[in-house]
Amino acid sequence: MTLWPAAQPGDMMDRIDTPALILDLDIFERNLQRLADAVKGRNVRLRPHAKSHKCPEIALRQIALGAVGICCQKVSEAAPFVDAGITDILITNQIVGTQKIDRLMHLASAAKIGVLVDHIRQVDDMAAAATHSGIRLDVYIEVDVGAGRSGVPPGRDAVALAALIASRPPLRFAGLHCYQGSAQHMRSSQERRQAIANAAAMAQATKDEIEAAGIKVEIITGAGTGTLVHERDSGVYNELQPGSYVFMDRDYADNRRGDGDIAFEHALFVKTTVMSRPAPGRAVVDAGLKASSVDSGMPVIWGRSDVRYLKASDEHGVLATDDAMSPALGDQLMLVPGHCDPTVNLYDQLVCVRAGVVEALWPIAARGAVL
Amino acid sequence: MTLWPAAQPGDMMDRIDTPALILDLDIFERNLQRLADAVKGRNVRLRPHAKSHKCPEIALRQIALGAVGICCQKVSEAAPFVDAGITDILITNQIVGTQKIDRLMHLASAAKIGVLVDHIRQVDDMAAAATHSGIRLDVYIEVDVGAGRSGVPPGRDAVALAALIASRPPLRFAGLHCYQGSAQHMRSSQERRQAIANAAAMAQATKDEIEAAGIKVEIITGAGTGTLVHERDSGVYNELQPGSYVFMDRDYADNRRGDGDIAFEHALFVKTTVMSRPAPGRAVVDAGLKASSVDSGMPVIWGRSDVRYLKASDEHGVLATDDAMSPALGDQLMLVPGHCDPTVNLYDQLVCVRAGVVEALWPIAARGAVL
Repeated sequence: MTLWPAAQPGDMMDRIDTPALILDLDIFERNLQRLADAVKGRNVRLRPHAKSHKCPEIALRQIALGAVGICCQKVSEAAPFVDAGITDILITNQIVGTQKIDRLMHLASAAKIGVLVDHIRQVDDMAAAATHSGIRLDVYIEVDVGAGRSGVPPGRDAVALAALIASRPPLRFAGLHCYQGSAQHMRSSQERRQAIANAAAMAQATKDEIEAAGIKVEIITGAGTGTLVHERDSGVYNELQPGSYVFMDRDYADNRRGDGDIAFEHALFVKTTVMSRPAPGRAVVDAGLKASSVDSGMPVIWGRSDVRYLKASDEHGVLATDDAMSPALGDQLMLVPGHCDPTVNLYDQLVCVRAGVVEALWPIAARGAVL
Repeated sequence: MTLWPAAQPGDMMDRIDTPALILDLDIFERNLQRLADAVKGRNVRLRPHAKSHKCPEIALRQIALGAVGICCQKVSEAAPFVDAGITDILITNQIVGTQKIDRLMHLASAAKIGVLVDHIRQVDDMAAAATHSGIRLDVYIEVDVGAGRSGVPPGRDAVALAALIASRPPLRFAGLHCYQGSAQHMRSSQERRQAIANAAAMAQATKDEIEAAGIKVEIITGAGTGTLVHERDSGVYNELQPGSYVFMDRDYADNRRGDGDIAFEHALFVKTTVMSRPAPGRAVVDAGLKASSVDSGMPVIWGRSDVRYLKASDEHGVLATDDAMSPALGDQLMLVPGHCDPTVNLYDQLVCVRAGVVEALWPIAARGAVL
């Protein structure tokens, strides 16, 4: 009596048990193609972020459409992708701790792995481990281009770090990681454009300082679903890392689209059932915060302006309904999650649907891979 | 290269890879004992809620200390506990949908199962399935005693539902489910006491109406970690369902303790490492919102009043530090999660520690069991 999946291939939509994480394959494939088209003929490559989907089936499709590889956010997150035959992974994070570095070296014996640094001690530790293991690693300097999280300040502070990396033979200085995370959900297009103009200027200035010291900066990598057209058009970034574009979510949809922004569509849903109808204006569904992550706010109910998702507890969602009868007890609704990445991380499988029929179950192989 | 655990039994604390979910066994055992002591000699039984821990190892210890069984919140959540030999489970939820009811009947063939109803259609569906399967089910009426979520209103509305249940032979009317969820985190003891006094009055009135119709109300079940002493002392409730008391979390610790409240202690931590130290007042740790659920607010840093956890992204936590040097890059910290239940649901294992040494890894067998 181990846990069972929500559906089997061939099931009709209404047979899928709830809550279930649904991927609409037609929409998903359009999102993949739109991004591929958006960089065609431009001097910029794609390295989509796999932290959003944690699913090798999706990564393989991204690579088939031209991505050079993927990003991961954790060492352990990369492991199932290496198992699936993906050979080029940038872990967009500092790797600190003996256990983690040992695992990293093991991965790097099977695939080309890149990592970030923002401190000399990380360089020293990485060089020592790589020397010991006979491994070559790509190392990127993380530059804080406005997010206020990790990273060295822009400009000449990065020069000494680049020189240190370049002086350690098992390490290869690969470039700068310049992700402006806090720009992704600025609601107006003009704000996002300006934030990335600022980030690109900081990235360029840092590159100039390092190259003035005689060290080539090959790659400037960054960008997310909210801003990627601006990095693409910056003339500075030459690698883009969007993740959420494959799915979209409520938080990204709340951005106001500007000229040139790509029309990604919602492909990810949480299917849910009304399990209680206790009052005329209230319905309760079986998808709570363990079914749709609320860190970026509540989900919305797809295609139903008469129903609002008010609050979530562990396994309950309380809806306000305009109509006293609809949705009725037993009705099924589709939620658009507030934030796709942590929602996907709650499930073991994507239930992949095309034209109302379950086509496949894709394992979310890196679910829970926080190490 | 499948995913690996954060530690192995015998490892010292500082060898545990991060982020990791740590259970301090000495403290955990004290929490278990304190609850058992708190009901000793009283006319009330314990049925702890397993949605908090999802871990058969913990449920078996709760039962060994006198619990009559456990609660689960989902049908699928109950399955690993049935596998572990637990024979008495109340699923504190309405079960709606053919697939879910089929699974429920399968579980009920192996264990004594109870469910909630708040609508005649649920009774009809459950009775039909139970008749078809030759199963007997315990059915409780959920009464809304102040939480404003699911449940029938208190008083005579429940009488017809009780009569309907009693008229269906495969169903046994077992009692009333009267959980006041919105009282659990009222900050003052007086507010919590008053909310449960109100809830108990509504539960009693409902019981009186049903018994006046000649139907015995055997059990009134409810209570959570924040209020359980009031339900215990109410003279109305005779079964308590607390879940979080085994672990505690920041949100429960923010309640101001009143006279008679039980001194449960933090037993659950997320161990994390400082992976970036980009500015004198800022440190970044490797535990973000995929390592410690933020639905009830940010975690706090255990034993460190000089460091505050400001914000979480997927795999980063940004800390404000009073000291420019401490914590240093590579230092390890212990977080107390904002909300224990969804945090536990992020991990596959509890790393159980005693006196600084890993004693066991306990599978979180029902992790992700949302169906």
